[in-house]
Amino acid sequence: MLRIINTGGTFNKRYDPLKGELFVPADNLAVEAALGPLRPGGGVQITGTIYKDSLQMEDADRDRLCGIVAECPESSVVVVHGTDTIDRSAEAIEERLGVRSEKCVVLTGAMVPFSIDRVEATANLASAVTAARLLPPGVYIAMHGLVLPHREIVKNRERGVFERREA
Amino acid sequence: MLRIINTGGTFNKRYDPLKGELFVPADNLAVEAALGPLRPGGGVQITGTIYKDSLQMEDADRDRLCGIVAECPESSVVVVHGTDTIDRSAEAIEERLGVRSEKCVVLTGAMVPFSIDRVEATANLASAVTAARLLPPGVYIAMHGLVLPHREIVKNRERGVFERREA
Amino acid sequence: MLRIINTGGTFNKRYDPLKGELFVPADNLAVEAALGPLRPGGGVQITGTIYKDSLQMEDADRDRLCGIVAECPESSVVVVHGTDTIDRSAEAIEERLGVRSEKCVVLTGAMVPFSIDRVEATANLASAVTAARLLPPGVYIAMHGLVLPHREIVKNRERGVFERREA
Amino acid sequence: MLRIINTGGTFNKRYDPLKGELFVPADNLAVEAALGPLRPGGGVQITGTIYKDSLQMEDADRDRLCGIVAECPESSVVVVHGTDTIDRSAEAIEERLGVRSEKCVVLTGAMVPFSIDRVEATANLASAVTAARLLPPGVYIAMHGLVLPHREIVKNRERGVFERREA
Repeated sequence: MLRIINTGGTFNKRYDPLKGELFVPADNLAVEAALGPLRPGGGVQITGTIYKDSLQMEDADRDRLCGIVAECPESSVVVVHGTDTIDRSAEAIEERLGVRSEKCVVLTGAMVPFSIDRVEATANLASAVTAARLLPPGVYIAMHGLVLPHREIVKNRERGVFERREA
Repeated sequence: MLRIINTGGTFNKRYDPLKGELFVPADNLAVEAALGPLRPGGGVQITGTIYKDSLQMEDADRDRLCGIVAECPESSVVVVHGTDTIDRSAEAIEERLGVRSEKCVVLTGAMVPFSIDRVEATANLASAVTAARLLPPGVYIAMHGLVLPHREIVKNRERGVFERREA
Repeated sequence: MLRIINTGGTFNKRYDPLKGELFVPADNLAVEAALGPLRPGGGVQITGTIYKDSLQMEDADRDRLCGIVAECPESSVVVVHGTDTIDRSAEAIEERLGVRSEKCVVLTGAMVPFSIDRVEATANLASAVTAARLLPPGVYIAMHGLVLPHREIVKNRERGVFERREA
Repeated sequence: MLRIINTGGTFNKRYDPLKGELFVPADNLAVEAALGPLRPGGGVQITGTIYKDSLQMEDADRDRLCGIVAECPESSVVVVHGTDTIDRSAEAIEERLGVRSEKCVVLTGAMVPFSIDRVEATANLASAVTAARLLPPGVYIAMHGLVLPHREIVKNRERGVFERREA
């Protein structure tokens, strides 16, 4: 059984034609659409929460996320998150779970909204879902073909991709 | 390091407007496009071969595929394949590799061409790529959210999805 | 008021994942989707009929089409049609309507299904809809940027585009 | 012969993954892509200029646009424009051309960027291109299935569509 916790972020952004701008909708439509082809395998539940650009996430939001991760019954958890503070949430989750946790948590997101580029968002989510079922307990980030313990991967803000952190 | 061997199949089909039909092109454009967002992580090589609907694959084709899998230097291998005979190729590969092989081979494909539905094809390929890096040696099929040893998964031809094989 | 008569053809083709082939569905989903953004202007009705690849259209089908065109109350009519026999249907419609008709009929279609390439199908349909409201009575074909009396335009089967017929 | 003058606006917006926002690029890629299927008919030239959200257009920009419309050799002109001030530019163009002009100018745009919704942008552009070739001299706006003299059509900012102006 796998739990996907959708917190918003670029992955989910849609265009509002009346306001003429992208926004983070308070729903899971993008995650549902990207996940669709992986659904027949079964055993996936989605929880939506926070629904923010990750730069807007506050401590209370991060607390809530950690609570949902810690308390959900599934041992495999994927978190869809904005890329700008995904590292901070990963750290907070790790701290909350503690060293004896048996959960495998994989955070992921997208540099371009699913509504604009279906391929990047889907590839990242499918990687995260697959990794969350196969990896041992821990907190990981899956982005751009890398699936690594969260401290070993970092967003390169000039290139717009995640990279292995230099030791 | 990961090797993707693209044999064609529905995943790759494109529309020929002059003939008015779908065909399997002798190129890797669909695989390259679906793989694009996973490329920054590095270490992926693509080999194209056969380029057939899997119902048209002959013994000689399957032999060639087994040879490429066995002889490529990478220990993680993904095979993009038509879904109709993916199980036969999986079996042939397993036989060729033998029980002492250290290779992890994951076969995948799509029910709908990438040119028509980017999401399903991308999700399956990303699952396969991720699984090929994380699983122990063996021959697996990754489709529709399942990643299983090839004998434990089967195409349900009425529903059009892959399912866990009933024991 | 404008009537769109959808007869099928490549424009409408969708992929059947169970059979592994494209088919002409007995519905107007592709036409509805391409027409969506032009709907707010109002006054468009869709009639679906025949639903065939135009190479499969028989005399009885063409008779039925001519009857619907002749009897619908609208003076502006768009016919979505397969490109292979669009010229024959245009001729049959012209004959049926007779020289005193006050109807402006514009036939259109697509070289690639809307389900694969939204841009070509939408561009042709929008051209046809716009032309049917602006042109004087007659029978026209709108394809690939040309909107001409049906005898002055021809499908170039080598290039896959419609062209002005050489005098 | 037809001239398309691309001034930017929502039609052209693309996503910048590094900045995490949509921007108006200084190129004509979206117009070229939407126009592609109408190109075989021939006789279309594209001029790109200004490249702004129409709320950012200044008097000098509007002057430049009017100059290009007035001085281009083609009598059929399509202007791709942001929807927020499309009415002001239409008025300025009409004034500049004067009552004896033999030009047919059709302004159009999109409520959603072509990069997000190919259908709306393509439908509007194809309508405008078709209308510019068929209508008598004048200045028109083509949006959402309506093609009307510019004073007879107005953007409904609550509904996000263009409507016939109430007399």
